[in-house]
Amino acid sequence: MELGQQAAPASDEVIGRCRRLFEPALRAAVSRLHPWSARMAAFSLGWSDVDGRPYEGNAGKSVRPAVALLSAEAAGGTAESAIPAAVAVELVHAFSLVHDDIIDHDERRRHRPALWKAYGMGPALLAGDALLALGVAQLAGDGEAMRYLSDALVELVQGQTADMAFEDRPWHGTGAVTTAEYTEMAAGKTGALLGAAAAAGVVLGGAPELAPRLWEMGRELGVAFQLADDVLGIWGDPRVTGKPADSDLRRGKKTYPVLAALAAGGAPARELAALLDDAPGDEEAVRRAARLVEEAGGRDAAETLAGRHLSAALATMDACLPDTAALRAVCDSLIGRIR
Amino acid sequence: MELGQQAAPASDEVIGRCRRLFEPALRAAVSRLHPWSARMAAFSLGWSDVDGRPYEGNAGKSVRPAVALLSAEAAGGTAESAIPAAVAVELVHAFSLVHDDIIDHDERRRHRPALWKAYGMGPALLAGDALLALGVAQLAGDGEAMRYLSDALVELVQGQTADMAFEDRPWHGTGAVTTAEYTEMAAGKTGALLGAAAAAGVVLGGAPELAPRLWEMGRELGVAFQLADDVLGIWGDPRVTGKPADSDLRRGKKTYPVLAALAAGGAPARELAALLDDAPGDEEAVRRAARLVEEAGGRDAAETLAGRHLSAALATMDACLPDTAALRAVCDSLIGRIR
Repeated sequence: MELGQQAAPASDEVIGRCRRLFEPALRAAVSRLHPWSARMAAFSLGWSDVDGRPYEGNAGKSVRPAVALLSAEAAGGTAESAIPAAVAVELVHAFSLVHDDIIDHDERRRHRPALWKAYGMGPALLAGDALLALGVAQLAGDGEAMRYLSDALVELVQGQTADMAFEDRPWHGTGAVTTAEYTEMAAGKTGALLGAAAAAGVVLGGAPELAPRLWEMGRELGVAFQLADDVLGIWGDPRVTGKPADSDLRRGKKTYPVLAALAAGGAPARELAALLDDAPGDEEAVRRAARLVEEAGGRDAAETLAGRHLSAALATMDACLPDTAALRAVCDSLIGRIR
Repeated sequence: MELGQQAAPASDEVIGRCRRLFEPALRAAVSRLHPWSARMAAFSLGWSDVDGRPYEGNAGKSVRPAVALLSAEAAGGTAESAIPAAVAVELVHAFSLVHDDIIDHDERRRHRPALWKAYGMGPALLAGDALLALGVAQLAGDGEAMRYLSDALVELVQGQTADMAFEDRPWHGTGAVTTAEYTEMAAGKTGALLGAAAAAGVVLGGAPELAPRLWEMGRELGVAFQLADDVLGIWGDPRVTGKPADSDLRRGKKTYPVLAALAAGGAPARELAALLDDAPGDEEAVRRAARLVEEAGGRDAAETLAGRHLSAALATMDACLPDTAALRAVCDSLIGRIR
């Protein structure tokens, strides 16, 4: 199976082919779980509805497993060799979404109820643990690949913790979250698992010497991805994103566009600061805040920074892998959603 | 350091010496966490109070790390070599307690508020994830030891899921939980991590050929331990156990003494079945249920079965390890609490 040999492949097509490669192994892994956990896992992976019937909706973007498979192939190995890494990162990603929704009290995920809304908080918490345990099990026997997954896991949880701790900090002045702190948080929360996908992918694909640089590549990619996600969280169409618009602003989440807008100074930034100090609750105030963030240049700053991190990731990729067309298509599509 | 050379060492002394060996490494691991997670980890490990001040209370029994260190030593290695396994199993155990208390809405743990009561549900959930991630990180580079830890993690979560699923099943008649199902659940929920402690301990201690049998030994030990815990959950002194008596009965938890009592037949069993069908809520009804479980022979059955599983564990231990005195003292003490 040659996934990376086309000149400019469409990302949907590349991801579709990756999914056909890793999904049987993912389903086999999930079938090891307790029937109750397996049912919740199938729901959270987008395979079934709440009653366990097959579901044909949005099953998620499968970007992390695609990065694992395509990295192995781009390094000269086969995509097949990296299937355990692909399954591992998809399971760990699913775990993080399930626990995130509980922590953030988010009731919707991909146009459906969040797992905890559908099955209850205790069962969902435990299903998240089961997804994580199963993810770890995929790479447990390979010390080198496992080390990347394990580092990613530690950083992912640190990043989520930092993100949560940011919510209690002021928007501006002493103790405000700096853009450097934001980048560090995003590199952990979103970058580390992409780094592990690429690094474990090439370890299993027979090119372990490339793993340290691809780990860094994934972290850059993750920062770009998180920035794009922040933009979508404020200005994205809820019909596309599947979650209510403005929920980040409402909750006081320290997203980059807002931090950059506040740091820009000028009249819109000052007006925004005053508005945020009042904790905008009603729809009109949240809309005004979004407009002020844009006027103060927060949206532009986020998009520019996302482009810069994406370029850094692609440069690393090009510097160490011979054939990056398919991988590049997937990475571009991650960020292209905001343009 | 020779932990296992005494003739009949006291378990407290053995565990104290083990703790002095692994605790510096455990503290170093926890210091890697985000400061917020580290503070919650220190609270849940019994090192500090809610405000972060040093705490000198009950820090838990440290049985799992002791089993890891003593297994390595009993197999002819050094206890020091098994420190990463000891730290890993203690962190995974701490993770499981933190999430368990959230799931079960238990407000007390070791005479203090449960972590989620002290710090909030979202932060506690994430602190549990951090403890787990850190536990996995201790053994990530050793494929053989990691496989045992990973299998234990999958089984532990399966066991917790089974235990939770049991709560919705009837006490008797069609669909009732069988004692075989109970044993399977206990082997996963409590046995697997003890199995991983012993197996990863001897892998790191230089005797990997013993690991499969010690894995089984740990599972037997775990079933014995869970049975003892069930007995304490009904008849234990809350001043000693640190949690309210009878909470298992009140919640409809399918513990072995109750299952065995119901399976025994006879007048007390029938009276107990009728009482449980009414879901005993007030203190008087719960006390009557406990008395009926005892009259129907449920307590004796649990203690006898615990003794049998402990004997099986000790026989395996004696068959494959040359010097088991210290390990035996710790295992005996686990069960001795009910006698």
